[in-house]
Amino acid sequence: MASTVPPDPVHSNHYVDYVIRYNFGDTDSVQATEQLDRLLRRLFDVGLQTEVRQGDETSLLVFVRASRKKSLKRALYQSRIRDWLYGVRNTEPEPESSAEPQSESERLRVIYHLITEPKEAGGAGITPKHGEWKSIDAIFPLHDEDMNRQCMKDWSRKTFLSPEDLDQIKDTFGESVGFYFAFLQSYFRFLLFPALFGFSCWLLLGSFSIIYTVVNCLWCIIFIEYWKRQEEDYSCRWQTKGVSAVRPKRREFKPEREVHDESTDEIRGVFPATKRMYRQLLVVPFAMLSAVALGLIIATCFAIEIFISEVYNGPLKTYLIFIPTILLSALIPTMSTVLVSIATKLNDYENYETQPAYDVALTQKIFVINFITSYLPIFLTAFVYVPFASLIVPYLDVFHLTVRPFVSKEDATSLRTEFSIDPDRLRKQVIYFTVTAQAVNFAMETIVPMLKQRLFREYKDYNRRKNGKSDPGADGSETKKEALFDDHPDETKFLTRVRNEADMEDYDVTEDLREMCIQFGYLALFSPVWPLVPVSFLINNWVELRSDFFKICMECKRPWPQRADTIGPWLESLGFLSWVGSITSAALLYVFSNGHEGPNGEPTAIRGWALLLTIFFSEHIYLMARYAVRAAMSKLEPANVKTERTERYMMRKRYLEATVGARSSDDEGDDDAGNDGKDRSMEVSEITRDSLEKDARDWSSHDVDPAERFWMRQKGWKESAHVGANIIKVADPHSKKEQ
Amino acid sequence: MASTVPPDPVHSNHYVDYVIRYNFGDTDSVQATEQLDRLLRRLFDVGLQTEVRQGDETSLLVFVRASRKKSLKRALYQSRIRDWLYGVRNTEPEPESSAEPQSESERLRVIYHLITEPKEAGGAGITPKHGEWKSIDAIFPLHDEDMNRQCMKDWSRKTFLSPEDLDQIKDTFGESVGFYFAFLQSYFRFLLFPALFGFSCWLLLGSFSIIYTVVNCLWCIIFIEYWKRQEEDYSCRWQTKGVSAVRPKRREFKPEREVHDESTDEIRGVFPATKRMYRQLLVVPFAMLSAVALGLIIATCFAIEIFISEVYNGPLKTYLIFIPTILLSALIPTMSTVLVSIATKLNDYENYETQPAYDVALTQKIFVINFITSYLPIFLTAFVYVPFASLIVPYLDVFHLTVRPFVSKEDATSLRTEFSIDPDRLRKQVIYFTVTAQAVNFAMETIVPMLKQRLFREYKDYNRRKNGKSDPGADGSETKKEALFDDHPDETKFLTRVRNEADMEDYDVTEDLREMCIQFGYLALFSPVWPLVPVSFLINNWVELRSDFFKICMECKRPWPQRADTIGPWLESLGFLSWVGSITSAALLYVFSNGHEGPNGEPTAIRGWALLLTIFFSEHIYLMARYAVRAAMSKLEPANVKTERTERYMMRKRYLEATVGARSSDDEGDDDAGNDGKDRSMEVSEITRDSLEKDARDWSSHDVDPAERFWMRQKGWKESAHVGANIIKVADPHSKKEQ
Repeated sequence: MASTVPPDPVHSNHYVDYVIRYNFGDTDSVQATEQLDRLLRRLFDVGLQTEVRQGDETSLLVFVRASRKKSLKRALYQSRIRDWLYGVRNTEPEPESSAEPQSESERLRVIYHLITEPKEAGGAGITPKHGEWKSIDAIFPLHDEDMNRQCMKDWSRKTFLSPEDLDQIKDTFGESVGFYFAFLQSYFRFLLFPALFGFSCWLLLGSFSIIYTVVNCLWCIIFIEYWKRQEEDYSCRWQTKGVSAVRPKRREFKPEREVHDESTDEIRGVFPATKRMYRQLLVVPFAMLSAVALGLIIATCFAIEIFISEVYNGPLKTYLIFIPTILLSALIPTMSTVLVSIATKLNDYENYETQPAYDVALTQKIFVINFITSYLPIFLTAFVYVPFASLIVPYLDVFHLTVRPFVSKEDATSLRTEFSIDPDRLRKQVIYFTVTAQAVNFAMETIVPMLKQRLFREYKDYNRRKNGKSDPGADGSETKKEALFDDHPDETKFLTRVRNEADMEDYDVTEDLREMCIQFGYLALFSPVWPLVPVSFLINNWVELRSDFFKICMECKRPWPQRADTIGPWLESLGFLSWVGSITSAALLYVFSNGHEGPNGEPTAIRGWALLLTIFFSEHIYLMARYAVRAAMSKLEPANVKTERTERYMMRKRYLEATVGARSSDDEGDDDAGNDGKDRSMEVSEITRDSLEKDARDWSSHDVDPAERFWMRQKGWKESAHVGANIIKVADPHSKKEQ
Repeated sequence: MASTVPPDPVHSNHYVDYVIRYNFGDTDSVQATEQLDRLLRRLFDVGLQTEVRQGDETSLLVFVRASRKKSLKRALYQSRIRDWLYGVRNTEPEPESSAEPQSESERLRVIYHLITEPKEAGGAGITPKHGEWKSIDAIFPLHDEDMNRQCMKDWSRKTFLSPEDLDQIKDTFGESVGFYFAFLQSYFRFLLFPALFGFSCWLLLGSFSIIYTVVNCLWCIIFIEYWKRQEEDYSCRWQTKGVSAVRPKRREFKPEREVHDESTDEIRGVFPATKRMYRQLLVVPFAMLSAVALGLIIATCFAIEIFISEVYNGPLKTYLIFIPTILLSALIPTMSTVLVSIATKLNDYENYETQPAYDVALTQKIFVINFITSYLPIFLTAFVYVPFASLIVPYLDVFHLTVRPFVSKEDATSLRTEFSIDPDRLRKQVIYFTVTAQAVNFAMETIVPMLKQRLFREYKDYNRRKNGKSDPGADGSETKKEALFDDHPDETKFLTRVRNEADMEDYDVTEDLREMCIQFGYLALFSPVWPLVPVSFLINNWVELRSDFFKICMECKRPWPQRADTIGPWLESLGFLSWVGSITSAALLYVFSNGHEGPNGEPTAIRGWALLLTIFFSEHIYLMARYAVRAAMSKLEPANVKTERTERYMMRKRYLEATVGARSSDDEGDDDAGNDGKDRSMEVSEITRDSLEKDARDWSSHDVDPAERFWMRQKGWKESAHVGANIIKVADPHSKKEQ
């Protein structure tokens, strides 16, 4: 489907802002028509122009654009006012009449809010896939194909993306996606050092080098703290600092009761926090269940594998050896899916009021599942198999498979006794997870969906052909396909593209962030085993950045531009992994410190107290180092943060100068008169000749406030100075002597 | 000096806002007179009235009040504007003309700033004890004696202070002192539970109860998190939230070079952060030095004490036993003073730009010193003496004092072998630190300074009598004393009081906070040893709160009201102590778990790995519990925080409604017309009859933008709806069937 003539760069999307896919397959035609009417009317009411075209057999495509300048401006102005009130922007926005979207992403975001926000807030109240609007299954902008192609071409020749490239991503896909790429870019850049250092360590020191481990831990700390600064920097550059304070309500939130809030005079649904807390406690059994379920699967497969590869020596060994791998690849994804769906249900049950709170809670649950599936196998090898293998392995032969009739008893015994652990197992496993699994993952993420997409399209076409006219026509399959709908010939190509985009998956940026976070975990937790881990990740991430961009552009609907000022709960996960890394690294070093062989499965070689002491010191040194790095980092201010602070400071200064300025101009008149102290003092104490006489009269009487009398003794500062000078003169020892 | 007739409650201070003590003892009289002139002139310029009186032989008292309403109002308004700009207050302040101080503390704070702030910021630029104004040795408000007396009387009959009492403190002494009392009050209230629980545990379970330890650790976590909430609550109640963002510059800051900041167009002194960081690294050797110096003293005294009390049996034992105590009480305070002065020098050297940064850094250093002096003796007993005594003690007799001629060799040997550790030593020591030391501390803090003050006054009077007129006069000593200065008889009593107040110490709230923080440490770290610790602290703190108030009122100059929104770096110290507590508690439990006796000095009874495992689990369970408590606490919103949030929300809502309201009123005209869809649509696409004809003409030509053509197919939403309805009808399987 390659287009030979490049379309007009500016208007390739026909000025379409959003496409709404309306699915009428499940409702009868009368209702569907009515609802479509309502939809179009609503959109029109907020100032959006619409065009309707056929989608596929059971859907319509409603093309939307903001044609009325005035309503777009008003929406923009309103969004900026809200930002200003929530402290996201420092400067009061310019007046409505001159409001222009600063970037494509701002324009698209404002229009999206115009479509989806409730009527009270000035939107059309269209809620895709929810409630009244269940049959609207997608609202998406169209890809800017030329921009995408241009970027992909550019980046394939670059090592690092420039800040302008990231700005470009942010302008196209919004700040949320922008932050993912900014993170990936920082991570990639930061990997250069451990990659180089790891390579040298691998050459010179081999595995389990204490120098590499210390440097690696320190690098993790510095990277995380650096990224926190970077995040702040980008949020200032992109003007989204504090945007997480604007927390959109969740539509699915089910309030327990309605409460009339007297202070705001609003009826508000509330759900007691304590009740939610009780529900959150369910996370504990859930985490246990996950750990046990996944742990059992992994441990069993692990045991089977060791048994077959290292104990079993019977027939069919070459085939049997694949059993655990097959079991693992079948069971783990299944179990993960089940657990994720339980996690989602639990999360729904916890009934969060705002979308960010919901997302954070879900992210945490998913992190637990991922932590177990990703790292448990290596944990088992390092801390169970290697130190205790000689104790455990004999029990693995529970079914006495090695003492079957086809081998003689003596043989079996000899087979058992000759067992020795495979010291290289841990390294092999780490290499598998950090190289092979990353490559497999890349394929699963990029190539498989593309094939799936293509197959799905073929299938759809095939179905259409079968159901539609049986005459295939003579003008080739491509024209034929499009001719299924009554499209205007000018639009055929465009509509085909839109239909394809509508069939694509939704893009979820947290999925990509999760992947990076788990990758970081391997580095923090296990890289001392094989110091080439960062090298592998460096290469992988160069590809990853480009392939993720490719994925967004070619395999997903274009996401509507969401704002963000952080990568969110993943940042916390990174910190957690780096902390755990300080424990596992120390333990790995201790357990494997006596050379490559490992302690050869003899638990006596490892002293419990020494291991624990190593861990204790390593962890607390880690925490101290983190404290120091944080303190040091907090002193260094990123460029954009500084600019932002200066801006804010200048605003304050202007305001303050205005008040101080007013003051000094007020005082000028006073100052001129002030040269004559006597005159001035009269004014201060408000004493005139008459009042003086009155004072003198009152002086003896008891009417005057004795406290006020205290202040009447010295009239004006000159008199005070005179009195003071006298006291000083009298007290001065020099003057006394002179006398 | 008891006054029999109570003075007029309102005017007992003669409306004096501040007293400035000007010391002219070190300068010659001409210079002193000139400077006094300058001082009075400056004060007059910012609108303050002055009266001069004699202080003592070498000082003047300058009484200051804000008599000009206008200048006070302007200063108030300016301070509020600044608060508003920094986000401390949410609402724009009322206009200048109606600005009135809301409380005495606000009035005093504003006047203090008026006196001390530099001229550019609209103040008089008087900097006590610094630079040009070195001879001004105090600026202080006068105590409100009736209020103080009233409070002391009230509180002695109360168990808990009410929030109104705390408001009263805040209104008198400022938020910073208010926060200390609020903390003490919360801490006292929170101690009730562990006191009760500890008492029951002491009765039923004895020392080293695992239940008590767990509850105690949990209580520490909850208390700290609760106090964080409380802090927020009070800062909202007192409208100081975010006040720490307004960071006053330090006068002592020495910039390395002047830099012209282009963005703010100001010349600014800078000191590179990296250079400061290098200087901060000196903290590491300093902490080591402190630890070694104090540790050596403590360990030596400890060793001597053990040797004398438990090994030595020679002559003079009853007297020698006091040697270590005397050494400790002499050396520790001396060494502490030396270390604190080193810490202050280090801190000065670190050259902080703002006062809060300086204070935080100094607080941290002082905390290190206090940590060592307070807790090291108990650490030594628990983790060195008890487990290793039988190994160490024999070496203590280095001078062979036990084998001196006056005892026979056989006796000496028998004496040595019969040594057994004192299992109750740890408990005795904890009791000493948590009961005796607290009482001693109270005496040192409250009673000793009072005696010192009285003695000092007597001494001053004695000097005066000796130097002054040799004729004592017949009218009693009291009148005579006052007659030394030429005071007006009406003012004698008042001036005597002011002179006394001027001689008092400065009050430093961090000193009191430090004391409470260290007390909390005993509870967190060692209370499992003796569960009555919280009972002792409960009683102590009831007294402490009152005696601290007494101290501020009677033994210190009234502090100028400083604002604060937190107890500052001490909060962090509390968190740290509670964390360390999770480690020490677990270790204590393990080491002393086999009954009261302790492991009897046999190191073999303690297994290293088991101890470390206990610590490892205890610490990580502690961290998890802290995470959970934090998460739970963050859901509960204190009342004042809620009010503040609602206020802010309401402000936003009003603004937003104004913009949305403007919109709907704009649209109303449109809506009427909107009933006729056709009319409306014309407006939307801006299509008139003429333009339609033009469109038709353009249609075939290639001049029109093909993208724009896309939007011309359906004119208005009604037509779109019609087209859509058709598509639905055609696609609908039911209608097809009917056909």
